[in-house]
Amino acid sequence: MIKVGIVGGTGYTGVELLRLLAQHPQVELRVITSRSETGSAVSAMFPNLRGFVDLAFSDIDPALLRQCDVVFFATPNGTAMTMVRDLLEAGVRVIDLAADFRLKDAAQWEQWYGMPHACPELLAEAVYGLPEMNRASIRNARLVANPGCYPTAVTLGFMPLVEAGVVDKHHLIADAKSGVSGAGRKAELGYLLSEASENMRAYGVSGHRHMPEIRQSLVQLGAAEVGLTFVPHLTPMIRGIHATLYATLREADVDLQKLFETRYQGEPCVDVLPAGSSAETRSVRGSNVCRIAVYRPQQGDTVVVLSVIDNLVKGAAGQAVQNMNILFGLEEGLGLYGIALLP
Amino acid sequence: MIKVGIVGGTGYTGVELLRLLAQHPQVELRVITSRSETGSAVSAMFPNLRGFVDLAFSDIDPALLRQCDVVFFATPNGTAMTMVRDLLEAGVRVIDLAADFRLKDAAQWEQWYGMPHACPELLAEAVYGLPEMNRASIRNARLVANPGCYPTAVTLGFMPLVEAGVVDKHHLIADAKSGVSGAGRKAELGYLLSEASENMRAYGVSGHRHMPEIRQSLVQLGAAEVGLTFVPHLTPMIRGIHATLYATLREADVDLQKLFETRYQGEPCVDVLPAGSSAETRSVRGSNVCRIAVYRPQQGDTVVVLSVIDNLVKGAAGQAVQNMNILFGLEEGLGLYGIALLP
Amino acid sequence: MIKVGIVGGTGYTGVELLRLLAQHPQVELRVITSRSETGSAVSAMFPNLRGFVDLAFSDIDPALLRQCDVVFFATPNGTAMTMVRDLLEAGVRVIDLAADFRLKDAAQWEQWYGMPHACPELLAEAVYGLPEMNRASIRNARLVANPGCYPTAVTLGFMPLVEAGVVDKHHLIADAKSGVSGAGRKAELGYLLSEASENMRAYGVSGHRHMPEIRQSLVQLGAAEVGLTFVPHLTPMIRGIHATLYATLREADVDLQKLFETRYQGEPCVDVLPAGSSAETRSVRGSNVCRIAVYRPQQGDTVVVLSVIDNLVKGAAGQAVQNMNILFGLEEGLGLYGIALLP
Amino acid sequence: MIKVGIVGGTGYTGVELLRLLAQHPQVELRVITSRSETGSAVSAMFPNLRGFVDLAFSDIDPALLRQCDVVFFATPNGTAMTMVRDLLEAGVRVIDLAADFRLKDAAQWEQWYGMPHACPELLAEAVYGLPEMNRASIRNARLVANPGCYPTAVTLGFMPLVEAGVVDKHHLIADAKSGVSGAGRKAELGYLLSEASENMRAYGVSGHRHMPEIRQSLVQLGAAEVGLTFVPHLTPMIRGIHATLYATLREADVDLQKLFETRYQGEPCVDVLPAGSSAETRSVRGSNVCRIAVYRPQQGDTVVVLSVIDNLVKGAAGQAVQNMNILFGLEEGLGLYGIALLP
Repeated sequence: MIKVGIVGGTGYTGVELLRLLAQHPQVELRVITSRSETGSAVSAMFPNLRGFVDLAFSDIDPALLRQCDVVFFATPNGTAMTMVRDLLEAGVRVIDLAADFRLKDAAQWEQWYGMPHACPELLAEAVYGLPEMNRASIRNARLVANPGCYPTAVTLGFMPLVEAGVVDKHHLIADAKSGVSGAGRKAELGYLLSEASENMRAYGVSGHRHMPEIRQSLVQLGAAEVGLTFVPHLTPMIRGIHATLYATLREADVDLQKLFETRYQGEPCVDVLPAGSSAETRSVRGSNVCRIAVYRPQQGDTVVVLSVIDNLVKGAAGQAVQNMNILFGLEEGLGLYGIALLP
Repeated sequence: MIKVGIVGGTGYTGVELLRLLAQHPQVELRVITSRSETGSAVSAMFPNLRGFVDLAFSDIDPALLRQCDVVFFATPNGTAMTMVRDLLEAGVRVIDLAADFRLKDAAQWEQWYGMPHACPELLAEAVYGLPEMNRASIRNARLVANPGCYPTAVTLGFMPLVEAGVVDKHHLIADAKSGVSGAGRKAELGYLLSEASENMRAYGVSGHRHMPEIRQSLVQLGAAEVGLTFVPHLTPMIRGIHATLYATLREADVDLQKLFETRYQGEPCVDVLPAGSSAETRSVRGSNVCRIAVYRPQQGDTVVVLSVIDNLVKGAAGQAVQNMNILFGLEEGLGLYGIALLP
Repeated sequence: MIKVGIVGGTGYTGVELLRLLAQHPQVELRVITSRSETGSAVSAMFPNLRGFVDLAFSDIDPALLRQCDVVFFATPNGTAMTMVRDLLEAGVRVIDLAADFRLKDAAQWEQWYGMPHACPELLAEAVYGLPEMNRASIRNARLVANPGCYPTAVTLGFMPLVEAGVVDKHHLIADAKSGVSGAGRKAELGYLLSEASENMRAYGVSGHRHMPEIRQSLVQLGAAEVGLTFVPHLTPMIRGIHATLYATLREADVDLQKLFETRYQGEPCVDVLPAGSSAETRSVRGSNVCRIAVYRPQQGDTVVVLSVIDNLVKGAAGQAVQNMNILFGLEEGLGLYGIALLP
Repeated sequence: MIKVGIVGGTGYTGVELLRLLAQHPQVELRVITSRSETGSAVSAMFPNLRGFVDLAFSDIDPALLRQCDVVFFATPNGTAMTMVRDLLEAGVRVIDLAADFRLKDAAQWEQWYGMPHACPELLAEAVYGLPEMNRASIRNARLVANPGCYPTAVTLGFMPLVEAGVVDKHHLIADAKSGVSGAGRKAELGYLLSEASENMRAYGVSGHRHMPEIRQSLVQLGAAEVGLTFVPHLTPMIRGIHATLYATLREADVDLQKLFETRYQGEPCVDVLPAGSSAETRSVRGSNVCRIAVYRPQQGDTVVVLSVIDNLVKGAAGQAVQNMNILFGLEEGLGLYGIALLP
């Protein structure tokens, strides 16, 4: 059994991690920390866990964490980077669900996240945990930077096109729609039901933190310079990301359906839909799958990719568990085969 | 492995049965029928099942159904009663998720359901499949009448009070709020998002088919006459029933919390919440649990019970699987321990 | 033109007051205050008001307020009571949308609202602004206590029954369902879309501040003692209250439909629906109407009343404008005849 | 007073026309037809109209319609084209809210709408009723083709860019998100709350009827060939369209904010938001305004336009009333100045 600790378990990625890990056959949950909730039962905050998780939140105890095989950070940005070094030295593997180790360039990180990086020397070593891109490196990683939700949906959608070099990399457009849970379990006006329901709005149009993260991956995939416009939208639903991607084909003679199917053949957590399909966010609600459909409207030179994930699962906690499975040599989808809840 | 057939799998109880049975360790799905969809893949209609259910819908073939150990009917009211006799004679056990065998009185059934009953001679034998009430009888049943969604939430909420005889049975009130999926997967105006979202309305105030069903159970539990007012409400959400129950105490000296905890001790699918708790429908979303909280406001003579279920799980497909487990001597909650999806 | 001031205009009742007053033919908006937003344009916070309201929020300036004919308080509980005396002395009329002057009994107020009352000597004078109950007194009032949202829906629903003395006053039950905007524009976890959407839950079961307010009105209407159970529920929608009321008839021979129609004949803001109607919250969305349907299921001794309002209009800002119209001798519905937005 | 008839008033554009026209100071509603609902009161179907609209639905009576000054068609596609000739000959002006006269090219119309056109000789005369583009022609029109909802939002968003010739017309992208009411009041599975809530999906990616309509307008605005990719999405809300538009700038030195503000200066129903604003669909809920924000992320060569409307108002009924006002020489926004309902 893998001994698991979670730092910062009171947010949505925290409860989702608990839901998945509590049912994982190879996991033993040892500790879950929360400064604000120390001492209170996890299941008092999240009643869905009654009968499944008996732990109480505890204050951070480094000694306890050092006894784990792996520690997940489900903390706000800026926390993991202050604690990771100590854990790695103790031989603990770390999966950070926040953004601390996602960008390779410390200066860029500091610019987008507005604080100094406490641990830039680990940026090079940290492996960006998108299994479909970096599976081999993840296997031997000590520190995994779990991807952001938008970057997961967008990168998986663009990946076959960019790797194959069939689109103009200077004018990639990602129009992404996310459910409100992507904003986390934070008391902010804009995410009240009364504000966000029966409403649609774009945000971060001038620049969103997930853009450099996506761009970094696209550059890794296809070398050279990338021109990416990324516009996220707040959508009146709880879970789900629907990324609609647009690119201009550089050659007329590509079988897009086949390109995608070949690229993702055998992938346990990516499902290329039959030609002409709709990709619905509800088809992945609660599941660790990214479903993708690809179109070429009117046989023109624009390719449209629809890529859907559950932002809390394949976009966060589920992918983190997938990474854990890889780290520990388990079957990659172990504990992740729950069927999406539909309707 | 239990060989399972499903008749009528294109509705919401159908897809929910498939979700649960596809992950049940002792079940082998053999056949799923649909007249309208014969030949098409189940996963084409329900993309969440891609990779989990390989079956296609088939036309009804009695010979095939007769080879099953158990057949679930997820059909509209009036279908199961025309096919059950044949299956029982072939030694197949039947669990009907529709209403055909829920009422013991054929005349009453015909009045509420507006059609002649095709098989009244089986009404006496059919066991009403509320395990917390009829577990022993279910064990040896050939034919289980799976309870309605409202009756499950309401009966479980009233049960300890009525059994203990501590409330006035002449003025029981059940104010129930249901998500829209309770209306089924039917193209009707009133259930359009544009009609049912941002709206709350009562319906069936003059009389709803689930009222005689609830009353029959309450009579079974507490003998004598029952005066029940039942008002269901259409609530702008997909899943969930919240039943708010009101009764007048006949004696001042009752420990309600203890009464409920004692009654449901050891029940795998009923969870009595700590005193003062809120019972939220989302705490049971996708799970086969009924969560109950009991209150006595201002220590007056009115008791208020909050009872929540997922109408498609404990209120339909999940309870049907629970009944199957009992029928076949399996652990009662087998395949039903998925954690509710929250948020 | 009536010179109007609004104290505390950044909440939902504030923006709704602005929407109604900006289109009122007899109103001149003079000042709207907000400590936190001083100096910023009202329409920057509420873009729906662009082109209709040119005011900026200002800090509270008593001199300016004293120049108004009427001042609305759309503040949290506890603010109006510290400022009203001064305004009344200056001859300004006051309509308080908060709870400061709703209860006649200062001790009771302090118990339910958890603070000392700063101005108990005005409680007797203040008129409870439910026009259908207190129209004559409102006409000459200096200080109007605008009713709470739940009390408006519940009291209007019970009123004909209690006035006529046809129901058992010891066992009245009000099961009320409210949209989330009733909680105000406050950044609290429980009202996030991710928490409150796809969910139904009761709250305040042990005791809610609106209960003594309702009870006070019922006592006024029918003398004697009242036994009331009031259970509010948070419903996944923005606007609307659906109150489902239950009472036991004391006499069998009452024409309930006629009782209600007679009682509300000529009322501009109450609409008794034809027998057998559904009362939908969306039928009053954005409008100042209370729609009521009355039922007697199976001709038993239980009467069921369905009463719907828009909590922000007839349950708050609209009713406040209705009170203003009465205070100033205008046609009672002036500026309030916008048709509800459906769908 | 303008004598008004409505053909086909049982859909969402019908009820919205009624809401607007019932409050219009220069309109006298004479007749509203519906084959299926002949004889029943309009307010029985749409309870929000109780007290405002006393008409009953009537069968189509050409003689009665001929006595109107203007007739609105709120019918499915293919109805108006069979009745318009007769009305025009009688001197009645016609505003068609369906698509029958939107495309100038009959062959193209027949291809996209899948039926022969019954009245192609009027296509040339019909004026496309987008006032901001065709105001002068509308003034003298006999027959107005009221634009589709998507085309209104998309065309108004692209218009300043295309007219000024500052973008590459070969790669315009319109990613549009619509509430479910855009699908009309039709009992279809896909629009059930249980299917469309908590879900996001694109549709019509291969080709949507509104694409040729948009393209026709863009060609009118900027001559030459247009390359347009249009992807509509079904969004879990009732009302609202959010169009996110992408284009590549051909010159670096454009003041986009000024370009838009200048173009729409004085327009009563278009509101260019201050630089950096969010454009929220709720800011136009129930109102006849199109709100637009324009961005140039990271000062690159991609321009992003956010354009929001209420699909039932500026995208249908409101724009139809705006056209009526123009036709009859009234102030263009008469009866259309209701403030959007927020929250």
